Amino acid sequence: MSEVLGTAVLLLLGGGVVATAILPKSKGFNGGWVLITFGWGFAVFAGVYVAFKSGAHLNPAVTIGLFAAGRDFAPDVDPTVVNMLGYFAAELLGAFIGALLMFVAFKSHFDEDADAGTKLAVFSTGPAIRSYGWNFGTEVIGTFVLVFWIIVSGMTPSGLGPLGVALVVVSIGMSLGGPTGYAINPARDLGPRIAHFLLPIKGKGSSDWAYSWVPVLGPLVGGVLGGLLGDWYAPV
Amino acid sequence: MSEVLGTAVLLLLGGGVVATAILPKSKGFNGGWVLITFGWGFAVFAGVYVAFKSGAHLNPAVTIGLFAAGRDFAPDVDPTVVNMLGYFAAELLGAFIGALLMFVAFKSHFDEDADAGTKLAVFSTGPAIRSYGWNFGTEVIGTFVLVFWIIVSGMTPSGLGPLGVALVVVSIGMSLGGPTGYAINPARDLGPRIAHFLLPIKGKGSSDWAYSWVPVLGPLVGGVLGGLLGDWYAPV
Amino acid sequence: MSEVLGTAVLLLLGGGVVATAILPKSKGFNGGWVLITFGWGFAVFAGVYVAFKSGAHLNPAVTIGLFAAGRDFAPDVDPTVVNMLGYFAAELLGAFIGALLMFVAFKSHFDEDADAGTKLAVFSTGPAIRSYGWNFGTEVIGTFVLVFWIIVSGMTPSGLGPLGVALVVVSIGMSLGGPTGYAINPARDLGPRIAHFLLPIKGKGSSDWAYSWVPVLGPLVGGVLGGLLGDWYAPV
Amino acid sequence: MSEVLGTAVLLLLGGGVVATAILPKSKGFNGGWVLITFGWGFAVFAGVYVAFKSGAHLNPAVTIGLFAAGRDFAPDVDPTVVNMLGYFAAELLGAFIGALLMFVAFKSHFDEDADAGTKLAVFSTGPAIRSYGWNFGTEVIGTFVLVFWIIVSGMTPSGLGPLGVALVVVSIGMSLGGPTGYAINPARDLGPRIAHFLLPIKGKGSSDWAYSWVPVLGPLVGGVLGGLLGDWYAPV
Repeated sequence: MSEVLGTAVLLLLGGGVVATAILPKSKGFNGGWVLITFGWGFAVFAGVYVAFKSGAHLNPAVTIGLFAAGRDFAPDVDPTVVNMLGYFAAELLGAFIGALLMFVAFKSHFDEDADAGTKLAVFSTGPAIRSYGWNFGTEVIGTFVLVFWIIVSGMTPSGLGPLGVALVVVSIGMSLGGPTGYAINPARDLGPRIAHFLLPIKGKGSSDWAYSWVPVLGPLVGGVLGGLLGDWYAPV
Repeated sequence: MSEVLGTAVLLLLGGGVVATAILPKSKGFNGGWVLITFGWGFAVFAGVYVAFKSGAHLNPAVTIGLFAAGRDFAPDVDPTVVNMLGYFAAELLGAFIGALLMFVAFKSHFDEDADAGTKLAVFSTGPAIRSYGWNFGTEVIGTFVLVFWIIVSGMTPSGLGPLGVALVVVSIGMSLGGPTGYAINPARDLGPRIAHFLLPIKGKGSSDWAYSWVPVLGPLVGGVLGGLLGDWYAPV
Repeated sequence: MSEVLGTAVLLLLGGGVVATAILPKSKGFNGGWVLITFGWGFAVFAGVYVAFKSGAHLNPAVTIGLFAAGRDFAPDVDPTVVNMLGYFAAELLGAFIGALLMFVAFKSHFDEDADAGTKLAVFSTGPAIRSYGWNFGTEVIGTFVLVFWIIVSGMTPSGLGPLGVALVVVSIGMSLGGPTGYAINPARDLGPRIAHFLLPIKGKGSSDWAYSWVPVLGPLVGGVLGGLLGDWYAPV
Repeated sequence: MSEVLGTAVLLLLGGGVVATAILPKSKGFNGGWVLITFGWGFAVFAGVYVAFKSGAHLNPAVTIGLFAAGRDFAPDVDPTVVNMLGYFAAELLGAFIGALLMFVAFKSHFDEDADAGTKLAVFSTGPAIRSYGWNFGTEVIGTFVLVFWIIVSGMTPSGLGPLGVALVVVSIGMSLGGPTGYAINPARDLGPRIAHFLLPIKGKGSSDWAYSWVPVLGPLVGGVLGGLLGDWYAPV
């Protein structure tokens, strides 16, 4: 429940900042990459507080990374396969709900604005240069940095709390977001893509399922690597 | 008194960043959405410190959300209807005073610059696409996130103090500000609108009273919902 | 000594961000108001740590505000007129030295770039619309917010230390910097103006002494008002 | 080992933000100086946590500054010449590895995009106006501020931890980065320059070895000066 709410807030705000930045009539139109990356980072910041009861993963790549590292998911939540699948489901559901709420908040913009590609980009990521192998690699590297950092920092950076991880997400977006738009989170990409597929969005086009496996598998692989190397470098 | 001063600082700085960003001869002209959203967030940061004695609501939506959640407004201030109306009045008065001071600070710019719509936009919010129903919905959602987050985080984020709520306000602006300019605060919109109506602003036009109920009622409804759900999810 | 070093760091970094943003061949050319305001805020952040021994005023308006409020300048430094004049001198000297170092760091840019007005703007502030009365008022209001906030927050915001005042300076720049470029500090303006006057800057023009009293007297008046009202609102 | 990992993260993210900002097909293309400076600052933030075991220098200029000041490199690591050379080697190796990973993350962009000068700029710094003497001076001043600040602040700013030094790096970039792109770190420049020289980058040009000594010697000199003056001003 906590993961559902937190991931919903994450995607409402995270999808929202993309909508604000790229839908033509939005007041923040053309806000640029600084707007998008800070917006996503602060969306993480807000969502982490909301999901505090469940350890605030908000991201299957974090969940699988903690599983690989053998760390508890939250106080009193052991890293079992069953619990992992439960987190996956909650995160995906939350992301779907967040995308729905974002759609409602920007409904009149979706009715008027933009070509089909822009509308999809509000929901899900896509590659700047389509090349599944390299796109996959970029997502692996970006997610590796995220999960490795979380494990190493012990999720309790000195006095900063959720701000620490939020700034690292800003950093990854600023630095590694150029090629693929940095999903670094399977739920962040798949949940809204399902929403895009199901919703009656005026003038929408393809949901680009051909690309959809990249921002799911890439982050999961990066998460496992980050968990394993993080646990080796900074064991409990 | 504390709420009056804090909300005055909020609106002096919050109105000021819009003036800096959109009045043509300003040194910050064309500063963009990143400037406006960080500027408002830091205005909250500054104002919260100033209003610490009264719990630093600065916002009737926060007051009514705490009322709905049954939380004290401040140490020794019970959430009664009378106190709520007192806070409303103080916040509205403070917002009016802040807008006056902003007008003084930018007086020579108001004498020279800009069309009537731009001048109103410095004071109050307006929709990118006018559609009262959807605009109302956007304000409800944005304010819900704010008040829900405040309740859930207990207003005492780990070590960050007022910076936490300031960053959430930046987040809401970056993510949900595109359609309506994110009032998310009835006093923030109504106080300056009254100032715009009363002040002898050169070349001013309509104060757009037809829209004025949206950024008042939307945030109040969002605040109540945020208070109720926040209290259900994170009870005292 | 501590004030000299801290104010030198403030002006080296503060002058530098303007140089980076407006000298045509700089890598940060056209960085905009977000760059300038964050750059000045972080310059305050850096300078405050350096000047910790003397209370880190870095600004005669802060010194006179603390004097007006009857607060100690630093542990074991009483708010006397003699001490105040000592602080003034140290701050002005530091600002002059900081401007010199900035000039060295950007020497080849000053040799090549820009018209005379741009070169002066790297050193000192100037009005967007010249109107001494209103410009004076804008500086009073901006400095009032700064000093009032410092007094009220007790200079020890919860856990943030110097970051708190740095963010308030960012806020004032973003919100009240449009009309005059926000000196809000007599030393910040006068020290570099003297440097501009004395240095052999290629193709420099007037140092605009006609305007120079505004960013000196305005901040001093704002500082006194901030100190008095701050002390009344939040007495020790 | 810790320095290798931390500096690799620093250069992966630091090189990445430049790639994101200047490679033409990147989603963050034309992100500007605000993007680059925040991106580098948050790269420092992420890297410092990763390298906590070894004191998180990430930078030979910091190492030599601590050596000059006679401060321990980390708990139980004395400031000896042998240790210093070990840190230098680890930092250079980490920077090289980070640049490799960045190249992989942006591989398809390097295959398609940009002229040779832009591609080199992703790896290493270069002067806006080529003038070895003044460029050297700019690097000395920028690095001096960094190392002096670290010594004076005792590397433990009040409650902020690694965020403090990250914000000072943002500050130096915003304020002193205009003339040379602010290496302020010999490993940051030399490691990626070697990677640029060795890697099979499509359409790459010269690695500009003629300039390469400036961002190595300048920061080392600045680091020594910062260490000596820092130790004189704020002795243990």
